[in-house]
Amino acid sequence: MGVVPALGLPIQCTSMLHLAVPTAPDWVDRALANLNDILLDHAHCEKRAAATAVGLIFRYPEHPGLMGPLSRLAREELAHFEEVLAHLSARGLAFRRLPPSPYAGALVRIVRTSEPHKAVDTLLCCALIEARSCERMQLLAAALERRQMEPELCRLYRGLLQAEARHHQAYLELALSLNLLPAARVRARLAEIAEHEAQVLASTPREPRLHNA
Amino acid sequence: MGVVPALGLPIQCTSMLHLAVPTAPDWVDRALANLNDILLDHAHCEKRAAATAVGLIFRYPEHPGLMGPLSRLAREELAHFEEVLAHLSARGLAFRRLPPSPYAGALVRIVRTSEPHKAVDTLLCCALIEARSCERMQLLAAALERRQMEPELCRLYRGLLQAEARHHQAYLELALSLNLLPAARVRARLAEIAEHEAQVLASTPREPRLHNA
Repeated sequence: MGVVPALGLPIQCTSMLHLAVPTAPDWVDRALANLNDILLDHAHCEKRAAATAVGLIFRYPEHPGLMGPLSRLAREELAHFEEVLAHLSARGLAFRRLPPSPYAGALVRIVRTSEPHKAVDTLLCCALIEARSCERMQLLAAALERRQMEPELCRLYRGLLQAEARHHQAYLELALSLNLLPAARVRARLAEIAEHEAQVLASTPREPRLHNA
Repeated sequence: MGVVPALGLPIQCTSMLHLAVPTAPDWVDRALANLNDILLDHAHCEKRAAATAVGLIFRYPEHPGLMGPLSRLAREELAHFEEVLAHLSARGLAFRRLPPSPYAGALVRIVRTSEPHKAVDTLLCCALIEARSCERMQLLAAALERRQMEPELCRLYRGLLQAEARHHQAYLELALSLNLLPAARVRARLAEIAEHEAQVLASTPREPRLHNA
């Protein structure tokens, strides 16, 4: 099993997560130097992930197979939101309004506007956002462990990264399970959107965020 | 302890729930004759209740005391959504799109547009929607028990009505806890909105819905 040398990440992590490009090592340095900012952004990301899943429940009642899985996903994102809020509070930080990073808005510009492509593309974008979250929480957890810093945050990221990997897989399986497009076309589209995701990520500001460059 | 004779409901239920007017007895008859319609509408109501709580999390990040309680509320509404979906499925009914009853839209027309009144009024409207849900689930459970009909649905309503009562109380406590208005004014406003709720309810169509006349 090879590793990406600069990051100490198992290569299969990136391949299992279907990301086209791994995170640049300097993102981790910026994140570690601004853990409070990362944590506040993270709380908003969990909240937005829940809202996205709830929004899809509203948009696609004609796909009953999406309802239960998306509802369970939304519940889990909300539980994570509460967990991150507790970490903010333990650090004496107030939860406050934070304009979103341009990442997700730019990512979903690739979503085609007509169905069934819109549903498939949207679920695949969600899968890739979860994948990037997973990759980055693994990077944060590994870096904090190496430096023996912030054991509480390290445990938080270790715990959540497994959930993010499951969510990645769940969104991908939902996109396939709809049987709206042949599985091979869904997988090919995932690879296309992953290339777009890498370009979007590279274009975001260097400001420390969970999904910025 | 007196009872509302036509309904066999403990009077304190209506007073504890701060409803101005109890449900008319013929609503229960219409609901019992259309339990499948009630159940589909109920699934949508739980879904909308979750979305409302998530929407308030987005609207009021400057009230950190709302975040955790609203997130837990949203998770519970989603769990109920999944529970009602399972009942639909067990009855061989498909979840499908259903335009909302005019009830909630008409109710929130009383919400004042400027803060802090908007926040207080919105939370009180939510409290009253939960109260009406609680009252009606109690009516349904009692009527099904009396007629020895549908034991599974009866257990569903018995279980959920307690959660609805807790949600009523939670929204009321949130409205009070913000300390945006003196408690006496919040309570007076609750009584005003409860009068409006009764009028709105009376104006809705007779079509069998959880929150129609």
